[in-house]
Amino acid sequence: MHTAADSWSTTTPELFERIRHAVEDGRPLAVATVVDVEAAAYRRPGGRMLIEPDGTTYGGITAGCLEGPLREVAGDVLESGAATVVTYDLTEDDGWGLGIGCNGVIDVLVEPVDGSWRRAVDAYANREACSLVTAVESTDPSIPIGARTTVGSHGSGSDDQPVDDRASLPPSIVDGVAARGRACAATGDVDRIRVPTEAGEVVLVVDGIEPPHRLVVFGSQPDVRPVTQLAARVGLRVTVATARGARATDDAFPAAERVLSVHPSELADVGLDGRTSVVIMSHNFVDDGLALEAALGSETPYIGLMGPRKRFEELRAALEEDGVELSADDRERIATPVGLDLGGGEPMEIALSIVSEVVAVGNGRDGGRLVDGTGPVHERRSVSRE
Amino acid sequence: MHTAADSWSTTTPELFERIRHAVEDGRPLAVATVVDVEAAAYRRPGGRMLIEPDGTTYGGITAGCLEGPLREVAGDVLESGAATVVTYDLTEDDGWGLGIGCNGVIDVLVEPVDGSWRRAVDAYANREACSLVTAVESTDPSIPIGARTTVGSHGSGSDDQPVDDRASLPPSIVDGVAARGRACAATGDVDRIRVPTEAGEVVLVVDGIEPPHRLVVFGSQPDVRPVTQLAARVGLRVTVATARGARATDDAFPAAERVLSVHPSELADVGLDGRTSVVIMSHNFVDDGLALEAALGSETPYIGLMGPRKRFEELRAALEEDGVELSADDRERIATPVGLDLGGGEPMEIALSIVSEVVAVGNGRDGGRLVDGTGPVHERRSVSRE
Repeated sequence: MHTAADSWSTTTPELFERIRHAVEDGRPLAVATVVDVEAAAYRRPGGRMLIEPDGTTYGGITAGCLEGPLREVAGDVLESGAATVVTYDLTEDDGWGLGIGCNGVIDVLVEPVDGSWRRAVDAYANREACSLVTAVESTDPSIPIGARTTVGSHGSGSDDQPVDDRASLPPSIVDGVAARGRACAATGDVDRIRVPTEAGEVVLVVDGIEPPHRLVVFGSQPDVRPVTQLAARVGLRVTVATARGARATDDAFPAAERVLSVHPSELADVGLDGRTSVVIMSHNFVDDGLALEAALGSETPYIGLMGPRKRFEELRAALEEDGVELSADDRERIATPVGLDLGGGEPMEIALSIVSEVVAVGNGRDGGRLVDGTGPVHERRSVSRE
Repeated sequence: MHTAADSWSTTTPELFERIRHAVEDGRPLAVATVVDVEAAAYRRPGGRMLIEPDGTTYGGITAGCLEGPLREVAGDVLESGAATVVTYDLTEDDGWGLGIGCNGVIDVLVEPVDGSWRRAVDAYANREACSLVTAVESTDPSIPIGARTTVGSHGSGSDDQPVDDRASLPPSIVDGVAARGRACAATGDVDRIRVPTEAGEVVLVVDGIEPPHRLVVFGSQPDVRPVTQLAARVGLRVTVATARGARATDDAFPAAERVLSVHPSELADVGLDGRTSVVIMSHNFVDDGLALEAALGSETPYIGLMGPRKRFEELRAALEEDGVELSADDRERIATPVGLDLGGGEPMEIALSIVSEVVAVGNGRDGGRLVDGTGPVHERRSVSRE
């Protein structure tokens, strides 16, 4: 696991790693999740932070406003074992102009890690999406705050087994939200649903949890390392695929989740699914061509290819000579020259350019300057209400 | 000094730090600098790498092709004390298709760190630009390869003092290239000039060395740390300016070059020159406004302001109420929402977005995907020939 030196900026894959350890070892750990916001807030719904019994935190859901108060709530939650939802009104006080600088109203679910997390951590480790469906408000005495079911991306929720240390949601409710659960799982979105029950009503938050985005880096020259390190640091799970057995050692790439030696034509075997990006950078014309062909035959939506346009045209011509024609769709998936236009030619600037593009495209963005755009900064995760 | 864990991707400020130590302590160290390329090569002229006597290298000028051969050359250079230029023809061999993957012809100047570096390292430390003007070819027996003068950004070169361990260029030659030296110093460009001499001719490389770009981060919340760490890692010299004495300790920000406590209205005092970018992220409306006003009154070409557009409009209105009108030029310098459009909302993704924009704008670029552009990848440094 790549450990962030700065715990506030701990990435989501690391947070899930910690949650998994807590589930497996029975260690006490609290999770604070943003479940609703009004107006602009620092993190969107789904933003998550962990709090250990001694107050150590990992991740951050505000820019310093709530970490303190949430430590206290987490302490209570770990003692009682009961989940709770806290609401903070952080609208700036412009009277004195000394507002703490956060904005909006934010609801945070604070809960202990317990058996209700097991399915989610297993799914995450298996690169499967799921949704945590959790009661955050309830006027029904039989359904406590924190009551939960987990819906798999292809599941119905009714296959979720009850656990000892957390209430389940009644099957009738689960059936009603299963479709929303699958939808949120597919996109990582967070929904909020008000559901009438037998004895009142509950508000459920459907928290879609996608598996971590993966980056496969094909190459074995020194420039693979800074790309790998930076990608891991920003939360990508990195596989280094080296050709022909070169440098295929874990300690050459400590930030990588996996280091494999593959024949480039078998690159798809490392697992190029719809949540995996590939960067081809062996600097060997033949190997890059074989890797490109293999990647095109997979589901990966992003294939970064290092080198100037001219080199790509030569690769393309070589492939065509071998009977491999690139369709327009193929061409759409290939990013060459790879990276965002940051200028600069130093190794770390090149790594920054590449990793920034991988992150942007993974989030459906184009990497241009936000000041030049018109849309909201945060678009990807939305809370729909009913 | 922020030390890169991966020595190949060592940043230029770190390379100059090492050169400075070698000059001051008289330690043996070789420098390999790209002085010419034909066709596409991995690094442009000015790309630099250091080699220690035991073969340890810092920085990289090719993606692994030449580091080995250059170690040998460096060993010889350190023994002889004489600079040399080596030419490598790396055009790919497509016959067998097993080309090492680099392209083009590349000339590399390999030299020992000696007294001829003193002015450059002093200038670099004082945030002054200069050019190293060095003979890389010579048919004049009185002018050896490596003969050098240093031209300051406002200097003539004739004020350069001779040193014991490196030949100087004759004053007449220096006068002829002083203007070019100043021009390259101003932009960091690299020029190549053929100059007839009394007894033959020399080819000079004018290697413009700009001081490192600086980033001032105004704020003291947890989100300052990942921005600081990432910015330092990509070669920016970071100053953390905290308001009102909060967290103004070096160990809170180990990656920062300086940590200062300033009143936001005095932010310009930390040194906001034309090679300094500012990111304002205190999350405090009043402090951010004062910092913005102070930054606008300085020369800094880039002022990143964290927060949504609406907040900026409110800040603007507040400034106008205080009689501070923002001109169109002012507005051009302000980047808000700050950062490139990468999507995502995690702390490291936000840091990536901000630092990527700072690098892009510092290099006169807009972010944006290179695949969508039309220009060459490397534009910033050019070699003009005559």
